[in-house]
Amino acid sequence: MFKINDNYLKLPGSYLFSTIAKKVSAYQAEHPDKQVIRLGIGDVTQPLAPAIIQALHGAVDEMADAATFHGYAPDLGYEFLRNAIAKNDYADRGCEIAADEIFVSDGAKCDSGNIQEIFSVDNKIAVCDPVYPVYVDTNVMAGRTGTYDPKTEVWSDVIYMPCTMANHFAPELPKETPDIIYLCFPNNPTGATITKAQLQEWVDYANRAGAVIIYDAAYEAYISEDDVPHSIYECAGARTCAIELKSFSKNAGFTGTRLGYTVIPKDLTCGGVTLHSLWARRHGTKYNGAPYIVQRAGEAVYSPEGKEQLKAQVAYYMNNAKTIKDGLKAAGYTVSGGVNAPYIWLKTPDRMSSWEFFDYLLERANVVGTPGSGFGPSGEGYFRLTAFGTYENTVAALERIKKM
Amino acid sequence: MFKINDNYLKLPGSYLFSTIAKKVSAYQAEHPDKQVIRLGIGDVTQPLAPAIIQALHGAVDEMADAATFHGYAPDLGYEFLRNAIAKNDYADRGCEIAADEIFVSDGAKCDSGNIQEIFSVDNKIAVCDPVYPVYVDTNVMAGRTGTYDPKTEVWSDVIYMPCTMANHFAPELPKETPDIIYLCFPNNPTGATITKAQLQEWVDYANRAGAVIIYDAAYEAYISEDDVPHSIYECAGARTCAIELKSFSKNAGFTGTRLGYTVIPKDLTCGGVTLHSLWARRHGTKYNGAPYIVQRAGEAVYSPEGKEQLKAQVAYYMNNAKTIKDGLKAAGYTVSGGVNAPYIWLKTPDRMSSWEFFDYLLERANVVGTPGSGFGPSGEGYFRLTAFGTYENTVAALERIKKM
Repeated sequence: MFKINDNYLKLPGSYLFSTIAKKVSAYQAEHPDKQVIRLGIGDVTQPLAPAIIQALHGAVDEMADAATFHGYAPDLGYEFLRNAIAKNDYADRGCEIAADEIFVSDGAKCDSGNIQEIFSVDNKIAVCDPVYPVYVDTNVMAGRTGTYDPKTEVWSDVIYMPCTMANHFAPELPKETPDIIYLCFPNNPTGATITKAQLQEWVDYANRAGAVIIYDAAYEAYISEDDVPHSIYECAGARTCAIELKSFSKNAGFTGTRLGYTVIPKDLTCGGVTLHSLWARRHGTKYNGAPYIVQRAGEAVYSPEGKEQLKAQVAYYMNNAKTIKDGLKAAGYTVSGGVNAPYIWLKTPDRMSSWEFFDYLLERANVVGTPGSGFGPSGEGYFRLTAFGTYENTVAALERIKKM
Repeated sequence: MFKINDNYLKLPGSYLFSTIAKKVSAYQAEHPDKQVIRLGIGDVTQPLAPAIIQALHGAVDEMADAATFHGYAPDLGYEFLRNAIAKNDYADRGCEIAADEIFVSDGAKCDSGNIQEIFSVDNKIAVCDPVYPVYVDTNVMAGRTGTYDPKTEVWSDVIYMPCTMANHFAPELPKETPDIIYLCFPNNPTGATITKAQLQEWVDYANRAGAVIIYDAAYEAYISEDDVPHSIYECAGARTCAIELKSFSKNAGFTGTRLGYTVIPKDLTCGGVTLHSLWARRHGTKYNGAPYIVQRAGEAVYSPEGKEQLKAQVAYYMNNAKTIKDGLKAAGYTVSGGVNAPYIWLKTPDRMSSWEFFDYLLERANVVGTPGSGFGPSGEGYFRLTAFGTYENTVAALERIKKM
């Protein structure tokens, strides 16, 4: 008699964004006349840049001709893309990352969920609190998180590193030593960043403690201030303790096109085994590469035209971020984020809970945001709005919020 | 101090097709003048059909315009594709599968590797021997297979169901009751099939034993004989015991485009929990959907033009299969497969081992095939050739083999 993976049953409710989608659908079904504006899920709205569209059409044409058709991709990604990444995202920033330390994938969500597989079940994880829920949820599924207390929304075997107004949303080194540390900067959901000196402390700590850092740099393209690191490999010693995850979703609008990559330096080892070899084995056995046409689209992100067009796209969203932040401030809200990240993090008014404010905002302003508590216990009392809407919708949403 | 997943270290050597690729690269580096013909890995060579190319271009154009741009896909796939699958692959064959029982993915390799995650680690698996290596390898990674004996190439906790000439490559019901049964028909690598009556026996057995069948139907499009089931849901009772995996790689040439799907009927439960809900949770948490443009390409597979064009493509490969089978027979080889599958399975001559014959064929004929032992212990002494080459290369390869 077959048995299921009981760890799945420990997960409370459904995945955060599925819950939001269901709530919004229900509201719209009841109120078909209302125009709901979605500033909840971090999904982009601008079309793919012309350079990317051109690359896609070109690659599709290649697939139409036996002479230029592409079947199975190389396990770790096409060299043209890995070379472009190595040059632009690393060498040009003075980071020493070789093309064969880059694993191309269909997105950072998959990688951030799957990366835990190469670690033993009895590793202890530490996460920023609040943070992107995939880190904890996938460790729950693997049986690494102990028991759940529905009252406090805390897992017994997870080390939470609170990021609140009190510490400017920057985690402090944990008292208990973790084995695996998830860091995400610019942070989802708070939009906060840490300086290079602060990140260096984390790298030094991980090397001292024998911990591995899983560094999610999905929002790197939104960094506008100096002294905020774009990659963890800007820090000395990161090659022996850090894995980095990157996405094409937010810098290039690939949420529906699917492309990302993971970097595992070959110096990152455990008992003589490189984590690189383990992830290569996972990729080779459970994955079959990102589509050729999508990898060509990814290459175009690094072309001179692509870079220029995407700089404008990021600026468009960051103008939205400024609109939201300034508007909320003017309306009396306490806000942070929005300077190096497309997320604005606000304190809910009148001691409302995150979900109370979600309902309030949906019903009163017909605006969808994301409850902070969905990102972890310390997110309670906060709320996330994203800058990924259209400018027109963003302005309209703020008008409605101001009128509430 | 972090620890790795030790199960990975139990895996012998590298993934089969990575090993072959390395051997071929080494041979070509030493013999740059030789024209190697690859009939090893099951990768297609014909370009995407015109209807698919047209759908891809159309979808790319949609991504260029904010009004028709697509961001994150629905977790389980777009309805237009799930409806097309439900109608064409199931309803039209009299199988009762609803669109919301279909989970669209980036390919059957990922799904066949990931599906084991929703089961407890202490389930016992049964596999056809030989078979596609991903089933066993991913269970090794999860710690479900016990210890490996390098001499016999057998895992202590796997139930092997030998498929040899003696039983016409059709597995017999195992003596020890398994929890999870992997079946793949038409079979990779043997090219063998079983009749609907035979498959019904497996469904009845699984329902009796409380086992779940993971049915890999990746090669269904190559079935040419009547009475060979295209889907396990043609059998009565399959909705309570079977998961089905399907690929667009072989019927539509998507090896480098990446699309597949998994069917989990809502009647398939364990202790009141539907496996459907578990897989939905996995999809929602660890996956972000197949690219919109690729899902539109998948939809075109089911258009009248797409169907006609792909029928011709399958016929092209099956003509290759006939060429290989007839040629090998004429050269005195003992062969099977190639009638309902794009694979030809041959007995190695002169009691050569599978890898000896691999080297012999590579060096003497400059033809790459796949050693049968790479698919399981009972594959030793056999060898797989694929019909996915071009017709010209297939004919040339056979000429060379005949001259050996």
